[in-house]
Amino acid sequence: MTSSNHLLIVGSIAFDDLDLPSGNHRDVAGGAATYSALAASLLLRDRVRIVGVVGDDFPQPVLDELRARGIDSSGVERASGRTFRWHGRYSTDLASRATLDTQLNVFADFRPKIPAEQCTSPFVLLGNIHPALQLDVLGQLQRPRLAAADTMNFWIEREPKALEELLRRIDLLVINDEEARQLSGIHNLVRAAADIRKRGPRMLIVKRGEFGALLFDEAGPFFVPAYPLEEVLDPTGAGDSFAGGLMGYLAARGDVSPAAMRAAMFFASALGSFCVEAVGPARLLAANRSHLAARIASFARLVEHGSDLALPL
Amino acid sequence: MTSSNHLLIVGSIAFDDLDLPSGNHRDVAGGAATYSALAASLLLRDRVRIVGVVGDDFPQPVLDELRARGIDSSGVERASGRTFRWHGRYSTDLASRATLDTQLNVFADFRPKIPAEQCTSPFVLLGNIHPALQLDVLGQLQRPRLAAADTMNFWIEREPKALEELLRRIDLLVINDEEARQLSGIHNLVRAAADIRKRGPRMLIVKRGEFGALLFDEAGPFFVPAYPLEEVLDPTGAGDSFAGGLMGYLAARGDVSPAAMRAAMFFASALGSFCVEAVGPARLLAANRSHLAARIASFARLVEHGSDLALPL
Repeated sequence: MTSSNHLLIVGSIAFDDLDLPSGNHRDVAGGAATYSALAASLLLRDRVRIVGVVGDDFPQPVLDELRARGIDSSGVERASGRTFRWHGRYSTDLASRATLDTQLNVFADFRPKIPAEQCTSPFVLLGNIHPALQLDVLGQLQRPRLAAADTMNFWIEREPKALEELLRRIDLLVINDEEARQLSGIHNLVRAAADIRKRGPRMLIVKRGEFGALLFDEAGPFFVPAYPLEEVLDPTGAGDSFAGGLMGYLAARGDVSPAAMRAAMFFASALGSFCVEAVGPARLLAANRSHLAARIASFARLVEHGSDLALPL
Repeated sequence: MTSSNHLLIVGSIAFDDLDLPSGNHRDVAGGAATYSALAASLLLRDRVRIVGVVGDDFPQPVLDELRARGIDSSGVERASGRTFRWHGRYSTDLASRATLDTQLNVFADFRPKIPAEQCTSPFVLLGNIHPALQLDVLGQLQRPRLAAADTMNFWIEREPKALEELLRRIDLLVINDEEARQLSGIHNLVRAAADIRKRGPRMLIVKRGEFGALLFDEAGPFFVPAYPLEEVLDPTGAGDSFAGGLMGYLAARGDVSPAAMRAAMFFASALGSFCVEAVGPARLLAANRSHLAARIASFARLVEHGSDLALPL
């Protein structure tokens, strides 16, 4: 059975122009789907599928590199025009960023077409695209075992109806704390999570960047920290690496139980921690499974409190 | 041996005027030493000692209430004049606060005098007072087994020399993330912690409010989350409750090993989470040991990831 647990990832493939405290970088091949797929591929060799669109300016070697990692990119459409481009500038402490420019380019007309043989993918990650397109993808699929989606403030403001419909159709929503507050209209995250889960998804993950992430499901809240790093170079793609690592782990185990979700949160945070250690996806590209095992072991020590939490007499 | 593991707490006893989103509250009996002592007393019955100063306006029933909890307040001096008073206003989301007024009153001339029989206290928590006074207290004591101190931006800016001397004399510094950055001049907390530990304290705890706390010691970093609460009413005293809970737990166990420190972080965070659930110290006053055991059990579930973090095949 495990061999059939493929993960389908739909989302943006992009060029990023990154103004970082360490320097400016141009034409960095990225995008949510790219980061998610690279993270997932460390856990789910030869079973990750990516669907997106690139322009005729996108270098074939980058797609070849995905293929070399066992990521099936047959669903990546090459359209006539330029690839989606994002230009962001980070603050000195990397805690915030401003979008300087967004050029949708070929992404503006993107309508995901899932290859026929991928429509039975049991694990699906819908990256942050128009919720109507996320719904359209779900419409093309046989009911997946686990459908997860990301979204953002733009869609929460502009497309509330499509987003409500999406919430009813997914099992897991993965967003950040500000998005959870905006989506629910509730500041307190515990109550915001309860509100969002009532609207559809059985599970909600709230990402908090350097402050870790919270999972809310039927087993109660669960927390995983961000790994405390000595050097953070570039947060771009960390949230997408988190989501990809999470889904890759679950698909590899073929398990969506609360116990599997809790272990998956560690793998998700570990892959997010790799991502920020270099500019663009460089660190994810350099990582192998023994690096990941070592990072997971450090993570376990970070929260290992021993078995005895009894009150002292 | 355990019965001799007394904890001495030196710090402010105050009236707080609190402007909270839920309403304004005046003349709330508080202060760092009060919060720390109440938190510690849940773990260390009859072995907590508090040293501070109050004016002749401070109600005797409050001191009696401390005594009723087994807190030895014989070291609390009653001076002629008014009690230290702080007036703070919190933001709507409780994430930040502004000091509207500080009246030192009898605290201005406070020079802690440790009662003779308390000078052998093996566990000592030096609340946030002038570092020269913290040093003076250490000078009055036989070398304690564990000396912990808090400080703040005011002393980091104004009294760097006294603070450097204090750092050389303590085992544990408990501060928040902004203070750690200011003290070290380093933004990254992992490197800030390494810098501060080189200057003296074997252990550093960095408190991050609703984002939990990090311990740095010879066993590496350790993280404890803040408990995700459905309602937070008043953050005043949460950091002091954290420190008091930590020290109370360590004293009760008579253990300062890395393993004990890690368990202590949970008790610290649990007591911080009680503190914020009501205005002033009301929730700490209402809490008993079975409430604490239940909160600790919830905490354990919040981070319980199961034993298997192996990479899936």
